[in-house]
Amino acid sequence: MNNNTTTSAPFKSVQSGFDTSLFAKTTHNPSFASLTKQFTDINGLRDYCIPVNPYFPPPAIMEKLQERIAFALKYYPGSNENIAENIAQFSEVKNPKTIIAGNGSTEIISWLNSLFIKASLFVPVPSFGRWIEEPQGLGIELHTYRYEDSHNQYTSPEQLAAEVKSSGARNLVICNPNNPTGSILAREQVLWLLNELSYLDNIIVDESFIDFSGEEPPSIKNDVANYRNTWVLKSLGKNVGLHGLRMGFAISNEENIAKLRKHLPYWNVNGITEMLLHLIKDEHTSYHQSRMKTIADAIYLSERFEELPEFTVYPTHSNFIFVKLCDSINGTELRDRMLQNHGCFIRNCGNKLGSSEQYFRIAARPADDVNHLMDALKRELSSLQNPNNKLQSENSGIG
Amino acid sequence: MNNNTTTSAPFKSVQSGFDTSLFAKTTHNPSFASLTKQFTDINGLRDYCIPVNPYFPPPAIMEKLQERIAFALKYYPGSNENIAENIAQFSEVKNPKTIIAGNGSTEIISWLNSLFIKASLFVPVPSFGRWIEEPQGLGIELHTYRYEDSHNQYTSPEQLAAEVKSSGARNLVICNPNNPTGSILAREQVLWLLNELSYLDNIIVDESFIDFSGEEPPSIKNDVANYRNTWVLKSLGKNVGLHGLRMGFAISNEENIAKLRKHLPYWNVNGITEMLLHLIKDEHTSYHQSRMKTIADAIYLSERFEELPEFTVYPTHSNFIFVKLCDSINGTELRDRMLQNHGCFIRNCGNKLGSSEQYFRIAARPADDVNHLMDALKRELSSLQNPNNKLQSENSGIG
Repeated sequence: MNNNTTTSAPFKSVQSGFDTSLFAKTTHNPSFASLTKQFTDINGLRDYCIPVNPYFPPPAIMEKLQERIAFALKYYPGSNENIAENIAQFSEVKNPKTIIAGNGSTEIISWLNSLFIKASLFVPVPSFGRWIEEPQGLGIELHTYRYEDSHNQYTSPEQLAAEVKSSGARNLVICNPNNPTGSILAREQVLWLLNELSYLDNIIVDESFIDFSGEEPPSIKNDVANYRNTWVLKSLGKNVGLHGLRMGFAISNEENIAKLRKHLPYWNVNGITEMLLHLIKDEHTSYHQSRMKTIADAIYLSERFEELPEFTVYPTHSNFIFVKLCDSINGTELRDRMLQNHGCFIRNCGNKLGSSEQYFRIAARPADDVNHLMDALKRELSSLQNPNNKLQSENSGIG
Repeated sequence: MNNNTTTSAPFKSVQSGFDTSLFAKTTHNPSFASLTKQFTDINGLRDYCIPVNPYFPPPAIMEKLQERIAFALKYYPGSNENIAENIAQFSEVKNPKTIIAGNGSTEIISWLNSLFIKASLFVPVPSFGRWIEEPQGLGIELHTYRYEDSHNQYTSPEQLAAEVKSSGARNLVICNPNNPTGSILAREQVLWLLNELSYLDNIIVDESFIDFSGEEPPSIKNDVANYRNTWVLKSLGKNVGLHGLRMGFAISNEENIAKLRKHLPYWNVNGITEMLLHLIKDEHTSYHQSRMKTIADAIYLSERFEELPEFTVYPTHSNFIFVKLCDSINGTELRDRMLQNHGCFIRNCGNKLGSSEQYFRIAARPADDVNHLMDALKRELSSLQNPNNKLQSENSGIG
């Protein structure tokens, strides 16, 4: 790490030496661990990439987890079925037999992509990368439809159904709310879509971010088992503020779940996850409060972005916002300067099909972090629009 | 839990109330967590089922892991490729591109069973359950050959090759050392077998327990990439004493690994595993010492079992031993009494194809635990062979 860098910027948190070449390595962002050298150099780095729940688990639960973690590390976890029962209790899904647990929802995504989705897949874009790159890598024919700026990134179920039908695709993925656009369908709209497209081989409703869509999320978690061809995917790690654990699950009818369970390892989920689920399964009140706080943060973030004339802010129904930078400023340059000059790790969507480097998905954070981000953004936007400021910054040797 | 049980046994550690019906639920053993109610009632329960490494990680590494665990839980892990590099360094595999990381070796086993092993599979039995039940559940035609008591549970490579050829199977799994019999082939014998059976679709050499086979394990980890059709599976969680984490990996040629990687999630492995690997990757000396201590424990365990005329002890090359109880005592009754009367959690192999309830796989433990086990075993064996003692025990209200 280069510690000799000097800067004329007045910010106390000015950083340097973050390796922005890591962005180029994959179509995903570099991990926070790689940017911080396994957290040995956190150095003020603030993450606005990964939408999480900073208000959960409650400190008392974290203490218990810490106390018992040596056991969790030293003993074999229970079976997927044991774990499904705890997930059902925490997530208020009526029938545990309709649940299968995964190491993150991505484990289930991979199994669905590899085993259930054959021939062709329809995905409205931009979407979560694993629904695009993985099927493409596996040679599945991909049909897409783009969420439009002119419609505020919203697509009606009628339009969607028409597009899917005319594409001839045999499978459909919709993220509800959509990641990264934040647009959402009501529960009734999703159910209408399921009925309208009942001929499809599989319909996957990815509800990874739905807990942060509002006080009463339009989840179809307790409807999905009534459909022959439908899967709901749920994130758990991100929702409960522990995304390092990789926890997620799928819900479908008992037959589909039993069919998938034949393929999955008996003990696919680790002991820490098992212990955590045991500790949080009745924490409905504290989880609800944490959701509400996170939603309030997203609203505050959205309101603060409205102050910036350089950005278009789309309506959000999640714990992130989707914004578009004006054409006169380069999105990647802004992203890199935010990291190098301010330690703000933000992501633009240049690596996403149906998006570009001018679009950003910004994760909700507590107000202090949002205020820090806004101060830094205002400074960089001004600097990028004013050649004198820009020169000053470039001469400081940063980057 | 029933705390009213009394017993006339002089052992301080006498236990009761363990729910032995949990054994009947699956073809695997109940988890330690379920027996201890999430570790809230450890109550002297000692596990002799799961062969692990009790001497690793060194305390300093565990302290660092504990210190940083909040970060690991709160941030996304790196990609499978990042993790493979650390695994290569720790496990001394020359080319990280020949490695794919899994949530336990069972994750890789499941992918291989689901995607690569088609038509038919040959497995010498008894074997690890996931190589038997999962293929059977998926409708794969299974061919088996039984390790014989009369050959000390050893099968020569020549015999094995002849059996595989005559079966017509297209795929072969061998565990080296075999789980649960503890028998082993030399590296040259395995390589001979690979050449002899080069026509097979896939040969999988499951080396999950090989690190405890001796000072210089006969691993083919740095040979396997030279073969078109061969995979080596390695356990990592159990080896480094943290099997709650579910860590394992496979090694094959770069093409096979790239093909499998297309199916696996990009971030399949959790952040705690990533951090742990980062912490242990250069701990070769302490790992070697811990292996040697574990091997010494296995030798001591084996020697102590030789004292018991009721058991036949087979030669072992692992951190467990395989023993056979004489016909005059019922293996399941002994297992249940060891748990209920002494808190000793031992497994018999009644649920394993090619074995019976008279066979036990006993995991190596530090000498104190072995001594405790032997005292308890001697007492129960005497009790089961002497009707008066038996009556006394039954009248104590236990079980």
